[in-house]
Amino acid sequence: MNALPIDPPARLLMGPGPISAYPSVLTAMSAQLVGQYDPFMTSTMTETQALYRQVWATENDATFLVDSTSRGGIEAAMISLIRPGDRVLVPVFGRFGHLLAEIAERAMAEVHTIEVPWGQVFTPAAIEEAIVRVKPHLLGLVQGDTSTTMLQPLEDIGAICAKHGVLFYSDATASLGGNPFEADAWGLDAATAGLQKCLGGPSGSAPITLSERAVEIIRSRKKIEAGIREAGDEDAPDFVRSNYFDLGMILDYWGPRRLNHHTEATSMLYGARECARVLLGEGREAVRVRHELNGAAMLAGVRGLGLVVFGDVAHKMSNVVAVEIPDGVAGDAARQAMLDDFGIEIGTSFGPLHGRVWRIGTMGYNARKDAVLTTLAALEQVLRRFGATVPVGGGVDAALDVYTGHAEA
Amino acid sequence: MNALPIDPPARLLMGPGPISAYPSVLTAMSAQLVGQYDPFMTSTMTETQALYRQVWATENDATFLVDSTSRGGIEAAMISLIRPGDRVLVPVFGRFGHLLAEIAERAMAEVHTIEVPWGQVFTPAAIEEAIVRVKPHLLGLVQGDTSTTMLQPLEDIGAICAKHGVLFYSDATASLGGNPFEADAWGLDAATAGLQKCLGGPSGSAPITLSERAVEIIRSRKKIEAGIREAGDEDAPDFVRSNYFDLGMILDYWGPRRLNHHTEATSMLYGARECARVLLGEGREAVRVRHELNGAAMLAGVRGLGLVVFGDVAHKMSNVVAVEIPDGVAGDAARQAMLDDFGIEIGTSFGPLHGRVWRIGTMGYNARKDAVLTTLAALEQVLRRFGATVPVGGGVDAALDVYTGHAEA
Repeated sequence: MNALPIDPPARLLMGPGPISAYPSVLTAMSAQLVGQYDPFMTSTMTETQALYRQVWATENDATFLVDSTSRGGIEAAMISLIRPGDRVLVPVFGRFGHLLAEIAERAMAEVHTIEVPWGQVFTPAAIEEAIVRVKPHLLGLVQGDTSTTMLQPLEDIGAICAKHGVLFYSDATASLGGNPFEADAWGLDAATAGLQKCLGGPSGSAPITLSERAVEIIRSRKKIEAGIREAGDEDAPDFVRSNYFDLGMILDYWGPRRLNHHTEATSMLYGARECARVLLGEGREAVRVRHELNGAAMLAGVRGLGLVVFGDVAHKMSNVVAVEIPDGVAGDAARQAMLDDFGIEIGTSFGPLHGRVWRIGTMGYNARKDAVLTTLAALEQVLRRFGATVPVGGGVDAALDVYTGHAEA
Repeated sequence: MNALPIDPPARLLMGPGPISAYPSVLTAMSAQLVGQYDPFMTSTMTETQALYRQVWATENDATFLVDSTSRGGIEAAMISLIRPGDRVLVPVFGRFGHLLAEIAERAMAEVHTIEVPWGQVFTPAAIEEAIVRVKPHLLGLVQGDTSTTMLQPLEDIGAICAKHGVLFYSDATASLGGNPFEADAWGLDAATAGLQKCLGGPSGSAPITLSERAVEIIRSRKKIEAGIREAGDEDAPDFVRSNYFDLGMILDYWGPRRLNHHTEATSMLYGARECARVLLGEGREAVRVRHELNGAAMLAGVRGLGLVVFGDVAHKMSNVVAVEIPDGVAGDAARQAMLDDFGIEIGTSFGPLHGRVWRIGTMGYNARKDAVLTTLAALEQVLRRFGATVPVGGGVDAALDVYTGHAEA
């Protein structure tokens, strides 16, 4: 087998993520490695923690990275905070709510779910009612569920959780950076994300932040490896059922003790640091506004092409839109033509939406006018060739109206 | 906070790993991303599987990557193969044996260990005796334990396991590439590794291979996410207690069903593929011989400097040597001088060896003559400045004798 060096085709990734990475993130990924306890390594870890405190809007000391994809970050948060038998409440408004419930089941929690139809979100009252009924140890709530494009409002949930003594955990993988997120102001005990959406990096590192209360629970469930055990170290009886995702051990590795756990994934650390650096360099608020502008332009554009937008648009994430595949158009073949003929990727869907909608993202590096307009121009051509009736120039014109301020952004 | 682009200092990493990555691996890490189901992505995944089958010397269809550091690969293998209450036998000859035992404890196994003093390995007879006594479901045996530099012979263990109906799992993170490994010929049911040692890449991806028997066990413990559940799908009662590390789900993602699980860490995939490509391009046997030659040169060199080598040298990994810190030399300060004054990293140690030995690696990209000689030249200077009596040129001369064939390689 004579494999050649990797040489990916040119792609404009306008799906629900992963999306094309910021060029400077790719450059950072190729920086040479240093040792695990090199002063440069530990200072880069500390600096990355400080950068992500700003990204999350938190003072939480326990802000760091889990060396896994975003899904591993979710599991680390849940398995470290949930003891077998603990009651967990998961409001499900799409696929990733089901995932949180499933991960809690694997952690042997007593899992309770409430559901709204795909395309909707929960009112704070509905969540509080369920909390009162279930009396959970932890509420697990996705902020942005890419499967439906919906953004669950979180700003009132922390106070409800505090009132009822419930831990509040949210996964913001799909939303962080492109939508508001205020870890401290919203009263989060734990929040997780990934790099591959609005942060504009590759999948493979999961930023996480934990409140002091969450850290206390995690610390109370300590288990120490025999190989590095010291006098006085004792295991808790309800120790975390994972070594790799035991956030207490990961904290001791990131913290001043620098107690060896995994070998930090240096290149992913470099990439994660650069994602935060790019975001904060442009400005947290500026990045969010850019996602809103480009998301609004894409929304106007797909409507200008005559496409019907799925779900409650008032509660849509800024960075992704789902559109119904027009009657008579072969959805997968049309998506394939976008990729093969234009090098542009748009997304398919899961579960109840499979075959019904396409998902189109505008995030991170690709939350850009040229990316939006190119996608709309190509989509117009493909829709027409696949038999749909489309207004000539309708997508690009509507999007340009948003950019020039002639339409509501 | 005004963070600058990442700019690591020049380092020659001659510790027990991570080591400096192959330049072409770093280049691969910076290739632009493609979508998760892009034909280029799925063909790259398939190609990477084929490359790693050659690296492992296996026909196992179930050969793929876990998106975590090597420690996560260990946990994935163990948690997927061990049911709560299963008996597990771990022969411990260093820190990573303790880690396997600890991960098995977290998986709620009934864990039995046997131990030899650090610096030794087990005879096949000692392992068989323990198997007969414990009757384990699984034997977990590290091949190379970096904490002691020892290489456990595995070639006779598979037959013993087969005879007694025991699953045979080995972690080869520290050894794979630089020492013999024959997954099929040695009867392995599961084997795991990382990129950051002899494979010459960054930590963050864990190559794994599973026998058909291992896959059957994993398949029997299936749990399907509600969000992607289809008619006829049913959970096994003893489902794997992790979603992220459920190898059955990861297999369905890598296999022809391409069932969505995590979002594959694209850059780490590119890097892992390049590590295998570099190794197979040079030749599996040639790479092993290169590690043996450079390891022998380093061994001769440190002896030529008058240092005492730790442990049973006949059972040392080719790619790392532990030397006793000479009396009167401040070990950590001397190591720091190697780093600060020469940009060369050598390793400290864990547990019973902490403060007693340094560990010096020659692996992957750094299993090179110039790296070995530069390290020995610098070490001579540092030892002298820290008060040790060292033969002038003794390290470099002895190593050069190995390279020129004037000494036993």
